[in-house]
Amino acid sequence: MGLNALQQAVGKDIVRAPGEIDLARHLKDLVQQAPAGIDLVGVAYPRTTRDVSDILRICNRENIKVTPQGGLTGLVGGGVPVERSLLLSMERMRRIEEIDAEAATMTVQAGAVLEAVQNAASEAGFFFPLDLGGRGSAQIGGVVSTNAGGNRVLRYGMMRDLVLGLEVVLADGTVVSSLNKMIKNNTGYDLKQLFIGSEGTLGVVTRAVLRLSPKPLSVCTALCAVEDYAAVLALLRQARQGFGGALSAFEAMWPEFYHIGTEGLGRQAPLAPGRGVYVLIELMGADPAADAARFEAVIGAALEAGLIKDAVIARSERETRSLWAIRECPGEFPKVFWPQLAFDISVPTGEIGDLKRDIETALRSRWPEIQLVFFGHVADANLHFSAKLDADPMPEHEIDEVTYAAVGARKGSISAEHGIGFSKRLFLHYSRGPEELELMRTLKRALDPNGILNPGKVI
Amino acid sequence: MGLNALQQAVGKDIVRAPGEIDLARHLKDLVQQAPAGIDLVGVAYPRTTRDVSDILRICNRENIKVTPQGGLTGLVGGGVPVERSLLLSMERMRRIEEIDAEAATMTVQAGAVLEAVQNAASEAGFFFPLDLGGRGSAQIGGVVSTNAGGNRVLRYGMMRDLVLGLEVVLADGTVVSSLNKMIKNNTGYDLKQLFIGSEGTLGVVTRAVLRLSPKPLSVCTALCAVEDYAAVLALLRQARQGFGGALSAFEAMWPEFYHIGTEGLGRQAPLAPGRGVYVLIELMGADPAADAARFEAVIGAALEAGLIKDAVIARSERETRSLWAIRECPGEFPKVFWPQLAFDISVPTGEIGDLKRDIETALRSRWPEIQLVFFGHVADANLHFSAKLDADPMPEHEIDEVTYAAVGARKGSISAEHGIGFSKRLFLHYSRGPEELELMRTLKRALDPNGILNPGKVI
Repeated sequence: MGLNALQQAVGKDIVRAPGEIDLARHLKDLVQQAPAGIDLVGVAYPRTTRDVSDILRICNRENIKVTPQGGLTGLVGGGVPVERSLLLSMERMRRIEEIDAEAATMTVQAGAVLEAVQNAASEAGFFFPLDLGGRGSAQIGGVVSTNAGGNRVLRYGMMRDLVLGLEVVLADGTVVSSLNKMIKNNTGYDLKQLFIGSEGTLGVVTRAVLRLSPKPLSVCTALCAVEDYAAVLALLRQARQGFGGALSAFEAMWPEFYHIGTEGLGRQAPLAPGRGVYVLIELMGADPAADAARFEAVIGAALEAGLIKDAVIARSERETRSLWAIRECPGEFPKVFWPQLAFDISVPTGEIGDLKRDIETALRSRWPEIQLVFFGHVADANLHFSAKLDADPMPEHEIDEVTYAAVGARKGSISAEHGIGFSKRLFLHYSRGPEELELMRTLKRALDPNGILNPGKVI
Repeated sequence: MGLNALQQAVGKDIVRAPGEIDLARHLKDLVQQAPAGIDLVGVAYPRTTRDVSDILRICNRENIKVTPQGGLTGLVGGGVPVERSLLLSMERMRRIEEIDAEAATMTVQAGAVLEAVQNAASEAGFFFPLDLGGRGSAQIGGVVSTNAGGNRVLRYGMMRDLVLGLEVVLADGTVVSSLNKMIKNNTGYDLKQLFIGSEGTLGVVTRAVLRLSPKPLSVCTALCAVEDYAAVLALLRQARQGFGGALSAFEAMWPEFYHIGTEGLGRQAPLAPGRGVYVLIELMGADPAADAARFEAVIGAALEAGLIKDAVIARSERETRSLWAIRECPGEFPKVFWPQLAFDISVPTGEIGDLKRDIETALRSRWPEIQLVFFGHVADANLHFSAKLDADPMPEHEIDEVTYAAVGARKGSISAEHGIGFSKRLFLHYSRGPEELELMRTLKRALDPNGILNPGKVI
């Protein structure tokens, strides 16, 4: 019945019955799977904001739940259906509508793929800095809805900082258009903030105005080895002071991770193994010669002072890529460290060393043979780690529980950049107090009183 | 009755009757005045978040409206009472509670004065970049609640970008503590965004975690004269490309403004008058010698290419201050350009020249003798102007109406950084559509169902 009403209103080419299409690709993201045999109303492929509005209006009236989907490159199941619902795929709305060179903005539809946005910015002489492994599939609507992060947050911010305006369709089909292109606009409540990072539970993003940056004219990259996390913090202070706002990456890798990223994957290690922590430092600037000189001076001074024990500065694009390949080795974990559980947590930067110890102690006391590899965007307070245990099945829930309890004890975040989706929902209380959770519920009730949007997610 | 209940609950030293204190200082901000003879319940001076919570709980129960007040340095009456209410002054809650050097954060109470925050950051070896004329009185709670801007937004962002965590008391007295210190934290809805820029209508900010920056080690400043606004845009492109993220100010001043800021105030003009537009450019970096060389190279190239017609680069701190004094002359308008009406609007940067023409045409066709001086943070899309008309009284409402209609025609913002308060409330529809206004009302109803918070403001 719901399907018929939808097909009559917006057309059978837009709303498809489950049997008509290849459903499998709609039922998983990079990690999470829909429950076996999940009952779906159908899949909608809107072409316009109007289509989205019509679909939501009817669903709201008929009490049909809706699971919005972007590129399904998430890790927590934010776009994966867990209840009977209509899937709302944004993949047909992928137009890059406008680049305003004076305002340094790009207006895009929600289904535009991140890499296409990066390329369009580059062709227009700009730089869209947000970057992540799923760039070839991730859609802007999903990147907005999850407030995605990545490697350049230190310099350019999270997705929230790169969105100037949004068009959103509310649960009842109302189109709220706030396609602002101005950096300064204090006319009442900043409504777009509600929809950034709320994972499609408060509205469906249909268009976005993105903020573009000047292209960096110089990039300097080094890999440094230091003694321990205290030395990482000391090096971070010097990098912040020496490079100011040009510091664009400060990535820590502990030895087990460094081993996988080099010898574990059959590659030569640029620095000898066995040091306490490896740090990838990057500066993005506008003055190649001066930036390179300054970069060498700061790294050199830290070497001379004994703070850095060993270092290599990339001398070519190829060397830069090979240093980054170490940091990006989690993409190759399936070859060498699998199956594994991936974690994305945060505590204030000064406490990351302690949190790492807490987690190691807690997990090893329960599973002595567990293997752990730690790495992270420590300047952003963000620690990642992967855990591997030869057990079938992996006691996933218990490992989560032990980890998130350790994070909660330090008032940290159980999700630094991946979001909550359905897989972290049970643990949200470790990071958020009862008053915060109640206020989230108040917002959910106010914006989606029938509870149709992305059921089973976040709260 | 209400006053007694409040005094019994939190103490007579905290809640004062209107007759007991000097009320006058609580009845105006820099521009706006409370209505004559306004009826007030009293003035509360809470010492703790608990006091604020007790006060709001009682007020919500007894239906007493509450007007929160910071340093009253606003321009739109956001903190000025316009209905019978209890004034809630945050001036006793001014503690700087913690500086976390590793996280680069500062935790402060809402009543802390902006200048004290800047100084404390500096003493700890950091930089708190937000700056505005009212720094000696403006309180952090007000700066957060109005999402203040200022001169360094281009490089460091608005106040929204500098707040990592908030503690807020809701209308019913619930304390929502989200004192996050992590740059990355995607655990559910980012609740603090609701309270930043909503001018105390959704909750009262009691504490904030602020993000600190490294101290800039070099500052380069120049004043340039160009032909027209097209040349301003061309120069902005070159400055963005040449300085990247280090570009920290790009301030345009039209000739009438430049005249007041120099000869009008009896000061020697560093560049000859009569050019089309004057632009103050600033770079903040971490490498004094290289930054100065790059600065001269970019300015020099634009001079040689004929884009810049005349320029002066500051050679000392004194020269830097004297260039900035021109830009900051509106603080001295009372001496030479008074009474005046001050405007704070925005349109996408590429349209600022056109908007200026629209406004001049519209205002002069109605009031041929009106005097207008234009200036602004054009890289942030923000245009300011002041209007003076020898009429008593000034037809303020009509001048507003004509101006905001011109802004609305370009889908611009009637308030780039000052907020709405009560003075711009009637004009909000020029910048926000009916769906946006309705969503704002939905939020207001959800968070403050009895409508006690900051009555008569924003919506």
